[in-house]
Amino acid sequence: MNDRIYARYWLETGDDPLRAAQVIAGEQSSGTFLKLATETPALKARSGARVESLQVLETMAEPSLPGGMKSSTYTRCLMELSWPLENLGPCLPTLMATVAGNLFELAQVSGLRLLDLKLPPAFAKAYPGPAFGMAGTRRLSGVMQGPLIGTIIKPSVGLNAAETAEQVRMLVDGGIDFIKDDELQADGSYCPFNDRVAAVMRVVNEASHKTGRQVMVAFNITGDLDQMRRRHDFVLKHQGTCVMVCLNSIGLTGLLAFRQHSALPIHAHRAGWGYLSRSPYLGWDFAAWQQIWRLAGVDHLHVNGLRNKFSEPDAMVVAAARSVVTPLFDDAPMQAVPVFSSAQTGLQAHDTFAALGHADLICTAGGGIFGHPDGIAAGVTALRQAWEAAQAGVDLASYAADRPALKRALGFW
Amino acid sequence: MNDRIYARYWLETGDDPLRAAQVIAGEQSSGTFLKLATETPALKARSGARVESLQVLETMAEPSLPGGMKSSTYTRCLMELSWPLENLGPCLPTLMATVAGNLFELAQVSGLRLLDLKLPPAFAKAYPGPAFGMAGTRRLSGVMQGPLIGTIIKPSVGLNAAETAEQVRMLVDGGIDFIKDDELQADGSYCPFNDRVAAVMRVVNEASHKTGRQVMVAFNITGDLDQMRRRHDFVLKHQGTCVMVCLNSIGLTGLLAFRQHSALPIHAHRAGWGYLSRSPYLGWDFAAWQQIWRLAGVDHLHVNGLRNKFSEPDAMVVAAARSVVTPLFDDAPMQAVPVFSSAQTGLQAHDTFAALGHADLICTAGGGIFGHPDGIAAGVTALRQAWEAAQAGVDLASYAADRPALKRALGFW
Repeated sequence: MNDRIYARYWLETGDDPLRAAQVIAGEQSSGTFLKLATETPALKARSGARVESLQVLETMAEPSLPGGMKSSTYTRCLMELSWPLENLGPCLPTLMATVAGNLFELAQVSGLRLLDLKLPPAFAKAYPGPAFGMAGTRRLSGVMQGPLIGTIIKPSVGLNAAETAEQVRMLVDGGIDFIKDDELQADGSYCPFNDRVAAVMRVVNEASHKTGRQVMVAFNITGDLDQMRRRHDFVLKHQGTCVMVCLNSIGLTGLLAFRQHSALPIHAHRAGWGYLSRSPYLGWDFAAWQQIWRLAGVDHLHVNGLRNKFSEPDAMVVAAARSVVTPLFDDAPMQAVPVFSSAQTGLQAHDTFAALGHADLICTAGGGIFGHPDGIAAGVTALRQAWEAAQAGVDLASYAADRPALKRALGFW
Repeated sequence: MNDRIYARYWLETGDDPLRAAQVIAGEQSSGTFLKLATETPALKARSGARVESLQVLETMAEPSLPGGMKSSTYTRCLMELSWPLENLGPCLPTLMATVAGNLFELAQVSGLRLLDLKLPPAFAKAYPGPAFGMAGTRRLSGVMQGPLIGTIIKPSVGLNAAETAEQVRMLVDGGIDFIKDDELQADGSYCPFNDRVAAVMRVVNEASHKTGRQVMVAFNITGDLDQMRRRHDFVLKHQGTCVMVCLNSIGLTGLLAFRQHSALPIHAHRAGWGYLSRSPYLGWDFAAWQQIWRLAGVDHLHVNGLRNKFSEPDAMVVAAARSVVTPLFDDAPMQAVPVFSSAQTGLQAHDTFAALGHADLICTAGGGIFGHPDGIAAGVTALRQAWEAAQAGVDLASYAADRPALKRALGFW
């Protein structure tokens, strides 16, 4: 087992960059604050993390993050570290403590961001990856090409089960492919989970008996493990085809335990991603973070959307969406489905398709559908037609010429 | 169920502060991007989050975090929001998605930090809290007063099971109270978990048969849920008295499931805390974060140490250590044990004791013990004596006068 784990970082340090890199590598492997007799050269050679590369980018007069060592200059660099797999074995939770543990608060660090990971194939053997991915999602939803056109039940919370089902009825009648709970809606007393699932699935199942196509509804099962299993079983019993979890709320070990139990696609919400990523000088790039969750078995992963209502720039959204379909291993690609949301309409379809080169995705819109002057069905149709146009390489205005739903949508999007 | 959940934030916004606060409250409850017919005043009154207070602190010319709305001034303020408990029920994972979900990336936000939480008593009924706390830790370790004097096995990784046990033997012979695995050491092929536990507990049990006192060893069981349960059972079978988990590696749902299984104190490591907290403009204050983990049932919580080798200032360490013993509820205090570490020696004992007003804690030192010129036993004795002096209100030099171990220690600390 000579395999190694590789992690790339953006580092800013008030120290000599190579010394700082070595401190980080030491702290996260065999280093000690005090030279111990037991820390032999043989032990260091076997278990020490290595600085694989260090590329200086620029120097700054002020530190990006406070509290570290004082210096006259702070050097920014790209750094790659590697660890022997045998230090931890193919264990995702310990991987997190290794590549993203007690590094960020080191005095040598005035900025540190985990950019990317490269894991040895042992992880592909130890972890399941997505059970459904795009192929399973298409099979269950009956959407055999193009994006699944979806939406989120709004208001986020406050509707009771019957009111939720009523909204679902309008959406199903309007031809929607995919509906999801808001991440704030789990099992509150005003809209208990079981009541909601029963009421919503009655509507969905009635429609599918007529149309032969089952709208996919991602019910938010986020909770304790036993609750999540029970809720999953309840969804399954009612012919539901998807469950949703908030990754930062449940965590890795909970997801792994649930993944063993699940017989449905796992729709993964990243609520809280902002506290992990909003500072450019700290935390996680999505490229690193999403690998861990894909290995653990999520099928759908939220990536925000182009020209979103949040603060994330388009380049970051595109990088995130590309990352979730980049194969993790040669013989275990473990691709997930990117989920686009936040202020999405048909106007982003062309740019999104151009950036990705494919339409194996879920596109959720709220106002982009509900705002259509001719109603929900026209809103769904218009969004679907915008994506058809993007895939066909035809500009929106031309494609809209003999398509009234799209034509009217262009007026309000 | 008219109870509400309260959360305090530090906010920086380029928008009008009250409007920004209302956007955040809306986004995290019943708000919608588009006015829907279903979002009635009655629904908003029932389910909407409320802005309880807003206190402007200062205005800045530049935003602390990039990507948000452009403005000529950015206003910093303290904000308190509240939610009806019925929106989510007493569910910790959904609480996280509510108070720390999709807020941080809002365009209105150029800085957001969750400072504190106040939860209604329903959470105390729904969650177990620590099973052992300080009383249980004292009972199992036989340390009936003062801090548990502890250390961490170093090098972090690289020693095999026999070498680890050899280090433990020296420490046990030296009179240590507490030993922990490093967070990087879990179940690597060079030091398999079961081999390590068997070898270490042989040493610990042999000693306890002689002395009648069992040194507490926190074995790092971090992993998948089944692994954690199996490892816990193995520790228990070998008369071990503590297990350690890395909270940010396993997550909340995994911890909750493990807590149901565990018959041992749960020693909680916060590896990764830096990425949650190192930017002053983003993320979590420890006061908010630790509440969630105490409710979920951790017994010991790492709080860093005064004059540590990391970048965290002393005031933050003191606040963290105080927070973990602040009662969560009137009739369910759920106090955890603060664990001090990082460059600790006897020199911090007086200041730490003065800041806390008690010595119900675990103090771990590495160089502060191993570096003693007269050996480990002298190092342990000296650290214990420094804490005796602190508790007795006697300065170190006077207390050391007729205590050779402490006297010699003052020369190298």
